Amino acid sequence: MATTAPTSAPSAPTAPASNASHDKAAAFAKGLEGVVGGMTAVCSIEQDKLIYRGYEIHDLAEHATFEEVAFLLLEGHKPDSRELERFKAEIVAERALHPAVTSFIESSAGWLASGRAVPMDVLRTSVSILGHTDEDCQDNSGAANLRKAKRLLAKIPTIVGHMQNVIDGRALIGRELGGDPSLSHAANLLYMMTGRRPSRDEARVMDVSLILYAEHEFNASTFTTRVVAGTLSDMHSAVAGGIGALKGPLHGGANEMAMEMLKEIYASVGEKGIGTPAVDAWMQTAFDTKRKLMGFGHRVYKNGDHRAGILMGLGKKMAATLPGTFGGLAAPKWFELGEQVQKIMMAKKNIHPNVDFPCGMTYFTMKIPVPQYTPIFVASRITGWTAHIMEQHADNRLIRPLSIYTGPAEKKWNS
Amino acid sequence: MATTAPTSAPSAPTAPASNASHDKAAAFAKGLEGVVGGMTAVCSIEQDKLIYRGYEIHDLAEHATFEEVAFLLLEGHKPDSRELERFKAEIVAERALHPAVTSFIESSAGWLASGRAVPMDVLRTSVSILGHTDEDCQDNSGAANLRKAKRLLAKIPTIVGHMQNVIDGRALIGRELGGDPSLSHAANLLYMMTGRRPSRDEARVMDVSLILYAEHEFNASTFTTRVVAGTLSDMHSAVAGGIGALKGPLHGGANEMAMEMLKEIYASVGEKGIGTPAVDAWMQTAFDTKRKLMGFGHRVYKNGDHRAGILMGLGKKMAATLPGTFGGLAAPKWFELGEQVQKIMMAKKNIHPNVDFPCGMTYFTMKIPVPQYTPIFVASRITGWTAHIMEQHADNRLIRPLSIYTGPAEKKWNS
Repeated sequence: MATTAPTSAPSAPTAPASNASHDKAAAFAKGLEGVVGGMTAVCSIEQDKLIYRGYEIHDLAEHATFEEVAFLLLEGHKPDSRELERFKAEIVAERALHPAVTSFIESSAGWLASGRAVPMDVLRTSVSILGHTDEDCQDNSGAANLRKAKRLLAKIPTIVGHMQNVIDGRALIGRELGGDPSLSHAANLLYMMTGRRPSRDEARVMDVSLILYAEHEFNASTFTTRVVAGTLSDMHSAVAGGIGALKGPLHGGANEMAMEMLKEIYASVGEKGIGTPAVDAWMQTAFDTKRKLMGFGHRVYKNGDHRAGILMGLGKKMAATLPGTFGGLAAPKWFELGEQVQKIMMAKKNIHPNVDFPCGMTYFTMKIPVPQYTPIFVASRITGWTAHIMEQHADNRLIRPLSIYTGPAEKKWNS
Repeated sequence: MATTAPTSAPSAPTAPASNASHDKAAAFAKGLEGVVGGMTAVCSIEQDKLIYRGYEIHDLAEHATFEEVAFLLLEGHKPDSRELERFKAEIVAERALHPAVTSFIESSAGWLASGRAVPMDVLRTSVSILGHTDEDCQDNSGAANLRKAKRLLAKIPTIVGHMQNVIDGRALIGRELGGDPSLSHAANLLYMMTGRRPSRDEARVMDVSLILYAEHEFNASTFTTRVVAGTLSDMHSAVAGGIGALKGPLHGGANEMAMEMLKEIYASVGEKGIGTPAVDAWMQTAFDTKRKLMGFGHRVYKNGDHRAGILMGLGKKMAATLPGTFGGLAAPKWFELGEQVQKIMMAKKNIHPNVDFPCGMTYFTMKIPVPQYTPIFVASRITGWTAHIMEQHADNRLIRPLSIYTGPAEKKWNS
């Protein structure tokens, strides 16, 4: 078990407590690094291999659709064709939003325009309101949880799409049905955000990105949903917490930050600087100023994140077919810059990219606005979160660790 | 370090991973029981002694006000008189809600009436919307976090009060100013919920209950706020997660469940049954049917929760002065029944009451509707949560444990 030294020595309030603190400190790992938080049948990332309920991620990315993976995570096994058709029909039927959620999204235009709220904030509130409109809200049974999980899976892309329409100041696309019932989860998400039905290639790249993002064991947002569910609170409460956690730049927010960094490098070195030592110089300055570069490294993967390679390959292949420029640069040039940055990170720091790094470039060249990258992550990870919430409720124990006291010794209020 | 055996043996997907799982399993404690989750200078509960930043809970309950304790938790030291006056003025000035929050609360009447949403749900959404209206929302600096913490402290009682007015179908009390600026946090909370300015005794009992509930180390909701904040997400995201966690009956929801249980016993044995073996018989049935009795036992306290004794004493003393009946029973009779239940739990199960047990009776005889007990808990615990969020942001590390895989061995998607 890996441990990390605490940043300051614990000072206990009384002598006997001091011994207790000392014992606890010996087992202390900051950020719970290397500590086992629980058991799960949903996912394994042991030995740098990502497995969803027995299926390895390369296999799923190559052979499965996101809907199949969602069924696998929520229902626990690979669907047969009849199960899959039923599941897809259920999800499509649940895509539309309750008017209270729609009108909240419409009312958020000013906050989104001012930057006071970012899309992840509006998504958090929208899901919180969704709970009030769900007839199963207070029911933690397995059957009710599964119904709620499917509704959340169906409705989150509609929230994301409507929100982008509000940002763009246009009428909500697919307001009545939550998009176009003939489109897949991935294609419909793109359609609702942009008003344009995506090409087959675009839809497949989005589909694979959703497969890659669907589940990742005890990451911080999933762990949040389990801690909330562990008090026997309800699924919507847990998911609202998960969205809050995923927002952070050390977690889901990293795909947005990774793209912002690439844009910053391009703005600094220009198109002609790509492929030249100008990029090395930019990176060296970042290293020298101890700037944290997002999209690289991972708490659990030490030898690289397989998802990064899969998405980099797909995104780059698609980029080669895309005409025009994206933020002033042709699509393949963004990937050329990204690959150069990856090489420098490996050469200078020996740090691998994680899935958030190619995701940034891929979504950017699909013309998806950067602040929606993390909400799209939610449209996928909702499957993993709700699978974990169901697992937690099915064999529950309150998740409640101890802490080491580092505050002042005991004293009297009136002294 | 106490450990709990996992309920099923881990089965790893591959042979080498199996060894890794085996090593991890040896250190596994379900629900992180006995595992250190981090360090904090905010609170210690070692040796069954509850200490807030150096001050022991009996001392605080006897000599401090809730406002002083809130300052202590948020600003880190006991306030002098000038600091206290400034702090109180700041809080009073921030009590009113943004119209968007008020109109959301008004719109929730139907959901609350139907039971589809409980007050904790509406509070979660209200706090989530509050984030959109806070100019510091995206700023995690210490100064911005402190401003947000004070605003949340000021506004949560207003949300709770307005919500009760909506439930009662009356005009919002103190809509413009968030209550009566001359009243304390505790008295104003009661005033906004009921429309009646509380007696000095009532205000003090509420004040002490808020002191007792203000902070409790790495409990599940506080731990949730730290996991969310640990991704460098913002304070409102973290607090929305905390509210979701506190809602659960294994956590904050216990004070409501404890009172519901007492009402159920009274309904079963009648007034004449109190003090007789009829209560023993009811309890024995509960034991025989393995019913979980809320308000008893605690993960951390093994020899009793000091807060329970403090609140039982105060509540009982106040009850002796209250005329009339409460749900058909005189106030002192509820405490007589509660004490009998406590004695039976000790005699038969050797389990102590926790603070949620006397809280139920105390709030009930103050005529506070049961579904508001946990929201009132939030009006206090917001101080502990925000103190922990600030501490987490000030010395951050992502909180991300590992898990043990118990799912199926690796297989091919198309096989």
